[in-house]
Amino acid sequence: MQFQMNKDKLLYHLVIAQKALSNKTPNPALTGIKVDVFKDRILLTTSNGEISILKTITDPSLQVEKEGTVLIPGRYFVEIIRKLDGQNVLLSAHENNLLKIEADHSDITLNLLDVEDYPKLLFKESAESVKVNVRVFKTLIRQTAFAASGVENRPILTGVYFKLDGNQLTGIATDSYRLAKKSIELDQIYAPMDVIIPSKSVEELGRILEDNQKSVELHFSPSSILFKYDDTLLLSRLLEGNYPETSKLIPLEFPHEVTFNKEQLLIAIERASLLSSRDGQNAIVKLEIRNDDAVEISSSSPEIGRVLEEIQPVAEVKGNPLKIAFSSKFLLDALKAFNSSEIKVGFTGEIRPFVMTGEYDPDMLQLILPVKTD
Amino acid sequence: MQFQMNKDKLLYHLVIAQKALSNKTPNPALTGIKVDVFKDRILLTTSNGEISILKTITDPSLQVEKEGTVLIPGRYFVEIIRKLDGQNVLLSAHENNLLKIEADHSDITLNLLDVEDYPKLLFKESAESVKVNVRVFKTLIRQTAFAASGVENRPILTGVYFKLDGNQLTGIATDSYRLAKKSIELDQIYAPMDVIIPSKSVEELGRILEDNQKSVELHFSPSSILFKYDDTLLLSRLLEGNYPETSKLIPLEFPHEVTFNKEQLLIAIERASLLSSRDGQNAIVKLEIRNDDAVEISSSSPEIGRVLEEIQPVAEVKGNPLKIAFSSKFLLDALKAFNSSEIKVGFTGEIRPFVMTGEYDPDMLQLILPVKTD
Repeated sequence: MQFQMNKDKLLYHLVIAQKALSNKTPNPALTGIKVDVFKDRILLTTSNGEISILKTITDPSLQVEKEGTVLIPGRYFVEIIRKLDGQNVLLSAHENNLLKIEADHSDITLNLLDVEDYPKLLFKESAESVKVNVRVFKTLIRQTAFAASGVENRPILTGVYFKLDGNQLTGIATDSYRLAKKSIELDQIYAPMDVIIPSKSVEELGRILEDNQKSVELHFSPSSILFKYDDTLLLSRLLEGNYPETSKLIPLEFPHEVTFNKEQLLIAIERASLLSSRDGQNAIVKLEIRNDDAVEISSSSPEIGRVLEEIQPVAEVKGNPLKIAFSSKFLLDALKAFNSSEIKVGFTGEIRPFVMTGEYDPDMLQLILPVKTD
Repeated sequence: MQFQMNKDKLLYHLVIAQKALSNKTPNPALTGIKVDVFKDRILLTTSNGEISILKTITDPSLQVEKEGTVLIPGRYFVEIIRKLDGQNVLLSAHENNLLKIEADHSDITLNLLDVEDYPKLLFKESAESVKVNVRVFKTLIRQTAFAASGVENRPILTGVYFKLDGNQLTGIATDSYRLAKKSIELDQIYAPMDVIIPSKSVEELGRILEDNQKSVELHFSPSSILFKYDDTLLLSRLLEGNYPETSKLIPLEFPHEVTFNKEQLLIAIERASLLSSRDGQNAIVKLEIRNDDAVEISSSSPEIGRVLEEIQPVAEVKGNPLKIAFSSKFLLDALKAFNSSEIKVGFTGEIRPFVMTGEYDPDMLQLILPVKTD
């Protein structure tokens, strides 16, 4: 194996491939980046067992002297390429499983990992794929994946549920205390399909996709999903099982409705969270719609003190008074998912879920279950 | 106690006072910021036992309604002021040791700490003080304090030794494996004096001083030093004991001399450090002056691999060949202390200290003790 290419180009691709690299893994082979060198292109493969990335490099600067496959210790490889001087870098495999990296006045030798130990990964495209605009898909990811569960006691809830129906793709995530849902329109009609993708894979995909108007292709197979974007393939396992029926959880009628300026509500909640005792993970904040239609946000902690914030809603209030309490983190997460600057909140009662929507966030809703307080 | 003032101005002063605030302290009173409110000014006091800060606020926006002294939980106080809306903030003390903070539509109540528990701190100016230009003093700090010892087994070495002699102020720091020394010229002649200041205090002072042409005043007393800068007083305890005689450690004649481009040497050392096994705190790097006057920087780790860097010195080399090994961290720290872009390194032998100087760093030297290798 021997090739040379522009160092910065190589680094660019490595940084993306690195995202699926694991530092702590029971399989040492997965700490490596597999490099397949062909006459006209290079493949970089990484995997952490959950997500795998296959990146194809075809670059005018690439000059292949000798084909071959090596498994390079990933962390060292990326750091070395990042720190090299000079325009080009030359990589060559040698006896005793050694890799030479040469650039400018640097001459570096790395012990290679054994490529035979690398797992076989199947980056297989399906005959039919679903095409989604990247910018729109990134919005769907950003507005839903955060609401998935971080704990493993109900594994199915650690995923994002994707449902394809006609020309509509819907993403749903819930940890059973809150729920996020967003639907997007596709350019054509597809056969119905639904899958549950680990939220970590979905979020990693969101980071890899650049914010542009290109398409990402979704290729489905029984136990995995392959995302194809430019010269990058991202493979994720799917979660097995039935996703809970969530549509019945979402109230449709709201006896109480308040419209907030998003920034005003956000900063008031942040201030109210400041003094929380933080014994649990989440600060509990209270919201009260007063008889005069002003809204009070408050929190208190016997040891530290209390915060009282007053907000004037930006539209007519429906159904005062009301008192409700909730996790400030859940509300902040949900608020940050919105593009709209005004957020309509529909309440159904003190211990019933409330729903947030925004005019400039079509087909998106955020639902939060309140907590009981005394 | 009751006053109001511009919120951003208050925050500006709090952020500086906060630097002496301790989060973990056996004395809970020290987690508080003491606020003394007088008719025309406010004093903020903080202390972590090692360093204490007294900040005087006189601001046109300040309106005092009622004098008094309170001890406010520091971390919450700063975070609240940071997050408040509106231009002004109103603070008032109330019964049951409560503090009210009001701004815009926020109404916050904090439980105060008991001001009786706060230690008495003596921010006493001496009759005679030493005046030092702030920019010059910051340079002295930056070029020396990092070389002090971080471990407590020889407490005296955790300090920076300051020696006043005529119109010259010299700072020296060493952890016994490396030494940094810098002298600066003062505007007038002072009586001889020497003190050892904890390096943490010195570094904190460096962070508080803004990079300008004003003066900082040094006020000495038997067991403490007071720095006066603008409306800020910083009080530090002194270390007791005799600082070791260091002048004999510094070689004056160098059989070997090499001048490097600083950036070239820096990046070569950084690359060589990449593959170090990192079993100790510091990667060991080797330097060899070859017969052809080129310099090789190398490191190796049996498990990972090896790095070989070649550097062309930027001036005539004196005394080849030579092989030497040292801690890469020590060399990087020392290099980063220089303003000069070319660094002259004088070697006295394979296991004897070497000394670095630079044309644009007058009266400054960095010394490093090599390590033995096989």
